[in-house]
Amino acid sequence: MSPSEQKILVAVVGVGLVGSELISQLLSIPKHISPFKLVALTSSTRSLYTGKDTPITDAWKSQLAASKAPADLKTLTTQLTQLVAEHERVALVDNTSSEEVAGLYPTWLKAGINVVTPNKKAFSGDAELFSQILGASAESGARWLNEATVGAGLPIIAPLKELLATGDKIIKIEGVFSGTMSYIFNNFSTGAPSGPSFSSVVAIAREKGYTEPHPADDLNGYDVARKLTILSRLISSGPAATALPALDSFLSVQTASLIPAALEGIPTGDEFLARLPEFDAEFDNLRVEASAEGKVLRFVGVVDVENGHVRAGLEKYSTDHPFATALGGSDNIVLFHTERYSPRPLIVQGAGAGAAVTAMGVLGDLLKLA
Amino acid sequence: MSPSEQKILVAVVGVGLVGSELISQLLSIPKHISPFKLVALTSSTRSLYTGKDTPITDAWKSQLAASKAPADLKTLTTQLTQLVAEHERVALVDNTSSEEVAGLYPTWLKAGINVVTPNKKAFSGDAELFSQILGASAESGARWLNEATVGAGLPIIAPLKELLATGDKIIKIEGVFSGTMSYIFNNFSTGAPSGPSFSSVVAIAREKGYTEPHPADDLNGYDVARKLTILSRLISSGPAATALPALDSFLSVQTASLIPAALEGIPTGDEFLARLPEFDAEFDNLRVEASAEGKVLRFVGVVDVENGHVRAGLEKYSTDHPFATALGGSDNIVLFHTERYSPRPLIVQGAGAGAAVTAMGVLGDLLKLA
Ligand SMILES: NC(=O)c1ccc[n+]([C@@H]2O[C@H](COP(=O)([O-])OP(=O)(O)OC[C@H]3O[C@@H](n4cnc5c(N)ncnc54)[C@H](OP(=O)(O)O)[C@@H]3O)[C@@H](O)[C@H]2O)c1
Ligand SMILES: NC(=O)c1ccc[n+]([C@@H]2O[C@H](COP(=O)([O-])OP(=O)(O)OC[C@H]3O[C@@H](n4cnc5c(N)ncnc54)[C@H](OP(=O)(O)O)[C@@H]3O)[C@@H](O)[C@H]2O)c1
Repeated sequence: MSPSEQKILVAVVGVGLVGSELISQLLSIPKHISPFKLVALTSSTRSLYTGKDTPITDAWKSQLAASKAPADLKTLTTQLTQLVAEHERVALVDNTSSEEVAGLYPTWLKAGINVVTPNKKAFSGDAELFSQILGASAESGARWLNEATVGAGLPIIAPLKELLATGDKIIKIEGVFSGTMSYIFNNFSTGAPSGPSFSSVVAIAREKGYTEPHPADDLNGYDVARKLTILSRLISSGPAATALPALDSFLSVQTASLIPAALEGIPTGDEFLARLPEFDAEFDNLRVEASAEGKVLRFVGVVDVENGHVRAGLEKYSTDHPFATALGGSDNIVLFHTERYSPRPLIVQGAGAGAAVTAMGVLGDLLKLA
Repeated sequence: MSPSEQKILVAVVGVGLVGSELISQLLSIPKHISPFKLVALTSSTRSLYTGKDTPITDAWKSQLAASKAPADLKTLTTQLTQLVAEHERVALVDNTSSEEVAGLYPTWLKAGINVVTPNKKAFSGDAELFSQILGASAESGARWLNEATVGAGLPIIAPLKELLATGDKIIKIEGVFSGTMSYIFNNFSTGAPSGPSFSSVVAIAREKGYTEPHPADDLNGYDVARKLTILSRLISSGPAATALPALDSFLSVQTASLIPAALEGIPTGDEFLARLPEFDAEFDNLRVEASAEGKVLRFVGVVDVENGHVRAGLEKYSTDHPFATALGGSDNIVLFHTERYSPRPLIVQGAGAGAAVTAMGVLGDLLKLA
């Protein structure tokens, strides 16, 4: 069997929304053409390892539920390392949002296990972990792929890698990277001086399930800062020197949180929402100001390569800018301003969250390995 | 040397605008990290074959000019087949717009030579040739990649393949696929009932180099029909059954040409442009009509998978549709309406022509092989 015909043995860690959908998409590729065999599952409590000869099937949920083996990433690592030693090609998919799991990527990569994930933690956390990931991958040749960490299934990371690898110069990437922020400001700020109150829009977004249970976890801007860190590090570790700062972590991104100072640290989402109306007048003022300039408010992320800074926050865009005209729903939009895509940028837009499109981004990465 | 470390030997056929730029982008990847060695060049008159041990360098233009060997695709085929026999990985890049060169893809693929190209001919011509390409590739495992045939460097074909491979259902793809048509209608139809005459916009587009020397070669819509054929066949040869018609060639696409019947067959572009003003009133009427409905005119291509048809022609879009609000310059824009990207589509937009972005699309495909 030539390497290209050799099936990739897949281990899935995390079987929540995205994990379950990924398994279902992966198993619906007809067996005779599928480049994958699913050999291991780990939830937060249990694990199932079937090995390469009896891969996991559609009955995975009951198989996993019936398993007596506890979740144990150490044992999983040993099992997968053994498969690599037997000249199998192995990929581990991390569908958790766990820092602990993310911390194991260097170990897995060093052991020759490819890592595919929608989990932002490893690539937006400590610079040291990220550098270990780069080092481990370079050492063993195992690859890490993370398309779904930014914009879910939207083609963002792969096109960016291609721009970099083919020698284009990135001038600036700017976008609306949070579906939650997109929904909130598409509804709050349409260009008109008035409209629904900020707190009411946030409350509706929460009811619709667009925000985290505690809306402050979206309004702090950290999710956007993490995505910018991922893009920024990808550019910095590319072939061309840039003026971008080395980010210690996503905390190094200049992030203008939308949480009113007086509401910092409020423990529950309900309490937070109950007090948010106290600050509606402030947000109203911003909307009036923007409208007077013929602009809308958008919470954007910017990787400004030319000027060497990375920032997330509320900015004003004229009503004929794509952030005003093209956005709707909870869409993400990303503009790549590059030497070749200039003066008009390359634009990618669409849903940037949801289990189906996120799982598709993950499966797309697995297909890149195949 | 493991297969993943093995350099890909690249043969370039066609060293015009895109070909030259491709060579320059490919050679600017630092040698120690480049996955490629350039081993053969063929222009319409000359050829240069250096073999794997002394790959072609930055001095390629003078090397090729100095070569005594005539262009000879038969000899090239023998040389590359020999390399494959020596267990080398070989890719041929066709940067011509030649039918003759396109006709050789089955031969090359059967011989194990990968084919990468921005040339639309093979994938939008006779169904028989396309089926031979699929067959030859399946037989040998050699791959064909053609991202740059639609939207140049924009990520269109690769994302479409990913949607298909991960089990999404394509409902409809619609877009402005021609930079020329984009420029013409972005300027001719802005939503207002009046504006510059159609003939004047075409004349300016030609002056700016946005049209073919003979504008009828753009206005016939064939370029769009070819791109739709490529997308449609990609969907039809995907894993899911569809209601799309089997296209005998791009001529099977319902294409509403913009060439006034009385101007069909006019031999020169100058003559054509001189007579086009006779038809300005007709185009004016269309603009007035669209404007009265609150719409703009756009020359679009539609692959309507749900309803099983493929068409190219002038259509009306409301002034808040992305084709009206987001488009500018000579940008392409493509909307993917799918089961997962629904009700809001996945959108890709940007320059869809130009040597630099087209070569980038080609090099991106080569990198996918590496
Ligand atoms: N959903 C989206 O739209 C979306 C979009 C882009 C990216 N993502 C990313 O995708 C990842 C998964 O998101 P999700 O929506 O699927 O979240 P989720 O439904 O909360 O699923 C995460 C799963 O991981 C499990 N888990 C946590 N720690 C684990 C461990 N150490 N070992 C094994 N399993 C563990 C959790 O189990 P318990 O519940 O038992 O703790 C849970 O089932 C996250 O990193 C998220 O940021 C999601
Ligand atoms: N330029 C763009 O923006 C763009 C965008 C998307 C796709 N494309 C596609 O890219 C391809 C190349 O476009 P281009 O703009 O580079 O065109 P170009 O400048 O006309 O280059 C084509 C080259 O191919 C050569 N050629 C023709 N037949 C040949 C043969 N049998 N063997 C070897 N060489 C041959 C031509 O040589 P002679 O001039 O000596 O005949 C010419 O140098 C076309 O298929 C085009 O449709 C271009």
